[in-house]
Amino acid sequence: MSKERLYLFDTTLRDGAQTKGVDFSVEDKRTIALALDQLGLDYIEGGWPGANPTDTSFFENPPRLRRAKLVAFGMTKRAGRSVSNDPGLSQVLGAEADAVCLVGKSWDFHVDLALGIPREENLVSIRESIAAAVERGREAMFDAEHFFDGYRDNPDYALACIEAALEGGARWVVLCDTNGGTLPADVERIVAEVAAKYPGERIGIHAHNDTENAVANSLAAVHAGARQVQGTLNGLGERCGNANMISVIPSLMLKPIYADRFETGIPVTELRHLTQTSRLLDELLNRAPNRHQAYVGDSAFAHKGGLHVSAVQKDPKTYEHIDPEIVGNRRHVLVSDQAGRSNILARLEECGIEVENDDPRVGRLLDAVKQREFEGYSYDGAEASFELMARRTLGQVPEYFRVERFRVMVERRFNARGELVTVSEATVKMLAGGEDRLTVGEGNGPVNALDQALRQALDGLYAELSDLRLVDFKVRILTGGTEAVTRVLIESADGTGERWFTVGVSSNIVEASFDALHDSITYKLYRDGARTAGRIAAE
Amino acid sequence: MSKERLYLFDTTLRDGAQTKGVDFSVEDKRTIALALDQLGLDYIEGGWPGANPTDTSFFENPPRLRRAKLVAFGMTKRAGRSVSNDPGLSQVLGAEADAVCLVGKSWDFHVDLALGIPREENLVSIRESIAAAVERGREAMFDAEHFFDGYRDNPDYALACIEAALEGGARWVVLCDTNGGTLPADVERIVAEVAAKYPGERIGIHAHNDTENAVANSLAAVHAGARQVQGTLNGLGERCGNANMISVIPSLMLKPIYADRFETGIPVTELRHLTQTSRLLDELLNRAPNRHQAYVGDSAFAHKGGLHVSAVQKDPKTYEHIDPEIVGNRRHVLVSDQAGRSNILARLEECGIEVENDDPRVGRLLDAVKQREFEGYSYDGAEASFELMARRTLGQVPEYFRVERFRVMVERRFNARGELVTVSEATVKMLAGGEDRLTVGEGNGPVNALDQALRQALDGLYAELSDLRLVDFKVRILTGGTEAVTRVLIESADGTGERWFTVGVSSNIVEASFDALHDSITYKLYRDGARTAGRIAAE
Repeated sequence: MSKERLYLFDTTLRDGAQTKGVDFSVEDKRTIALALDQLGLDYIEGGWPGANPTDTSFFENPPRLRRAKLVAFGMTKRAGRSVSNDPGLSQVLGAEADAVCLVGKSWDFHVDLALGIPREENLVSIRESIAAAVERGREAMFDAEHFFDGYRDNPDYALACIEAALEGGARWVVLCDTNGGTLPADVERIVAEVAAKYPGERIGIHAHNDTENAVANSLAAVHAGARQVQGTLNGLGERCGNANMISVIPSLMLKPIYADRFETGIPVTELRHLTQTSRLLDELLNRAPNRHQAYVGDSAFAHKGGLHVSAVQKDPKTYEHIDPEIVGNRRHVLVSDQAGRSNILARLEECGIEVENDDPRVGRLLDAVKQREFEGYSYDGAEASFELMARRTLGQVPEYFRVERFRVMVERRFNARGELVTVSEATVKMLAGGEDRLTVGEGNGPVNALDQALRQALDGLYAELSDLRLVDFKVRILTGGTEAVTRVLIESADGTGERWFTVGVSSNIVEASFDALHDSITYKLYRDGARTAGRIAAE
Repeated sequence: MSKERLYLFDTTLRDGAQTKGVDFSVEDKRTIALALDQLGLDYIEGGWPGANPTDTSFFENPPRLRRAKLVAFGMTKRAGRSVSNDPGLSQVLGAEADAVCLVGKSWDFHVDLALGIPREENLVSIRESIAAAVERGREAMFDAEHFFDGYRDNPDYALACIEAALEGGARWVVLCDTNGGTLPADVERIVAEVAAKYPGERIGIHAHNDTENAVANSLAAVHAGARQVQGTLNGLGERCGNANMISVIPSLMLKPIYADRFETGIPVTELRHLTQTSRLLDELLNRAPNRHQAYVGDSAFAHKGGLHVSAVQKDPKTYEHIDPEIVGNRRHVLVSDQAGRSNILARLEECGIEVENDDPRVGRLLDAVKQREFEGYSYDGAEASFELMARRTLGQVPEYFRVERFRVMVERRFNARGELVTVSEATVKMLAGGEDRLTVGEGNGPVNALDQALRQALDGLYAELSDLRLVDFKVRILTGGTEAVTRVLIESADGTGERWFTVGVSSNIVEASFDALHDSITYKLYRDGARTAGRIAAE
């Protein structure tokens, strides 16, 4: 029996971007869109062209998606204007996108109070705006704002809004629980009533998490007849967030109650990217991942010692609802060394480092990783630092230079003209190329000054460093309280377009930055096969 | 028509305490139990007497509860022993508690694999253990571990376990989704089938959040006939957590689909304690509250954007699913780069700042916000810095001290013993209390050193600063490339438990940190009504 198709629509880059404190760059947006495309979503809403410079710029040069359709978001036209005379709408319809999703009112109360226009005029706006999108060759969707509240107050009018969108040629009508207050039982009843009128692949669900039921509301809607689900990575979104795609997707694909009846566009084998896609978003937002997140959290398959662990070792099904590897997560059993060893071997293989399974150095490396993770290192986002540490343990990395000491100074004071100025200066003393080198650098901050001083000492010695540049710099505080540890993650790139990530950890942010800088330079020299410039030490 | 009664059972102190990193003291447990009792829960599970010294000590001197019943948790007796010959069970039954909740297997697979005993013997253990609790005069409950998995595999055996508990005299049988993988539609179907056999007040639900559906599963179970709901504050619990009582309670009490049919033991007027009860747990765990938590999160009723805000001001129902004050939360109007005049006015009102709508200073403040946001400031997460800037624009903030210059130095070098050490030192020169003050501080990093130097200069002058502490420190790089700007967000707290956020922005991380520190100290002094200590300047 063939399964019914469910369509997955991601709005991390549009509705997710509304979140307090979230401020995606154009490059962030491209990175996320490409990751979503790789995972296999059907629709990726990129933003609202014309609403702000980031979104406009994103659509001017959209990422090339392999299979997902790129969606531009906008609003139905203003009342009293023609479609062609609404510059906001024109910009949305003109954007380089496969589909257009237009939001409009479906709650009479909002039409009366917020818009203050005759209700019929709102229906005209919906119908004509959708029709204009279809005319421009776009797949058109209508986001029915406040649909559930509207349907409870005045079902005839809410349905009339949907009817208008379908008359205009909408491929999808998405029922939005904009205020997020509707409970699953109500969602299920209302979606069932609407889906009975418009069967087939017509109805979508857009849920918010204001009662902690966004995932359940999405699942209930599918049960009742919705065939498109909108959500965001990690449930990002304003107030309490949107429906969390990272939870919705595996529930639909792995639990028999849905999986036996439905299929998505994601092959089950691609689900193994789920955890890394979730972590990628946190990384870009510089947030600590939620350890307790369903399916992908670091603690989601954590087992404590004793009876529990021995039962899991007899059969994981005793205490695990799914196999964590299916979603790219791992079991954490605190007493087990075995998991660690196989994990390390897998990662070495990923770096292209060949060792025998029983090489005693693997044990030493495992100890080193454990020690460093205890100190607060995390190599999850810093493959280059992991590779360097592994290769150092295996004796493969030459010492290209040796920093004997450094000093960084930041001063704020009034200058001779009475202006408040802040200056940063760094001095580095190192041994390299067979001699002592003492250099000083200036920068707009302490790390920049340190980088300048290191460059001065090394640039003439190693031509490989001429195209090295620092792309990004992220700082995270790992623990609260007095023993806070700072983790600095540096992203570097060179002329070949390759990017790599290095990490430094210390209670001192400057020291952590220095260590990450040091790794970045060393990685570049190693990868380019630089020859150590003479003896390191002068003696 | 009289409503059906729902019973609320909190297990924060037992199942919540299983969470990695959670380590309640006896005093913490008493504090939480009293708060739960005040809120109006029916049952408070205090722990497992005999399992660890904390729980044993808690039950030796239990808190005096006003109305809730105190519950002791334990396991059904071991196979092959009599009840009186099981010391663990004896200790549970002997504990000073109103009720006893005993967990036992209900999945044949677990009886076979983990216990390795004949299935019939497990039924005997359940029946006799419950009967022993009843004999001791305790209200007895049976936690049917893995009930949903068990029912799917072998419904007859799972039901036989329940039957055994009821034969033993159990007041309640609680269906546990121990591995947390069951979806709401399955929970609803299975609970309905069980409740049809045992109608009335007999069945409870205990859900875990491994698919992000613990709250929905609890609500679905109630819909299907469960009359007791088990959960924890803020969803605390191992792996992905337990059902979050803070979300379950208001959904049951405020949403007509439940509230029209059911009542809990909590008066609606007591719901105003919900937010503070949630924050209390975070405070005891020294965790930052989840800003996005349903109902009680700081962002749960946050509004962004001009049109949106003006609609909420016309009628909050337009964008709020409940009145935030009912659950003790409040509305937040975010200042963002679309900040309009109405946003600013709403924000000022929130800070308790009174200005006339047409006050020309509002326009100046709006210009200042826009300018600073252009520079990279974001006041979304830094309410205290916003309030300070607003009050400064209105001329309300005295200059408590004036930093003339500061210098921060970080040095890594070898010490006299040949060890690599990193030292951080800061000097500050300021005018305060009518005199020049030159101080020096040392710290584990540059910001800590700067904080120390500022404290040295100010602590003797302003007693208000004695209980000020820095709770968290977040760094974000706003733009890539050479013109990167660093935004530092500092979270501070004092002895009253109040927390506030301040922000600093600069291309220099030390300077940004200094500005955020400066705001934090100034905010504390202003809020505590500190008197400026003499003239600022010496001249």
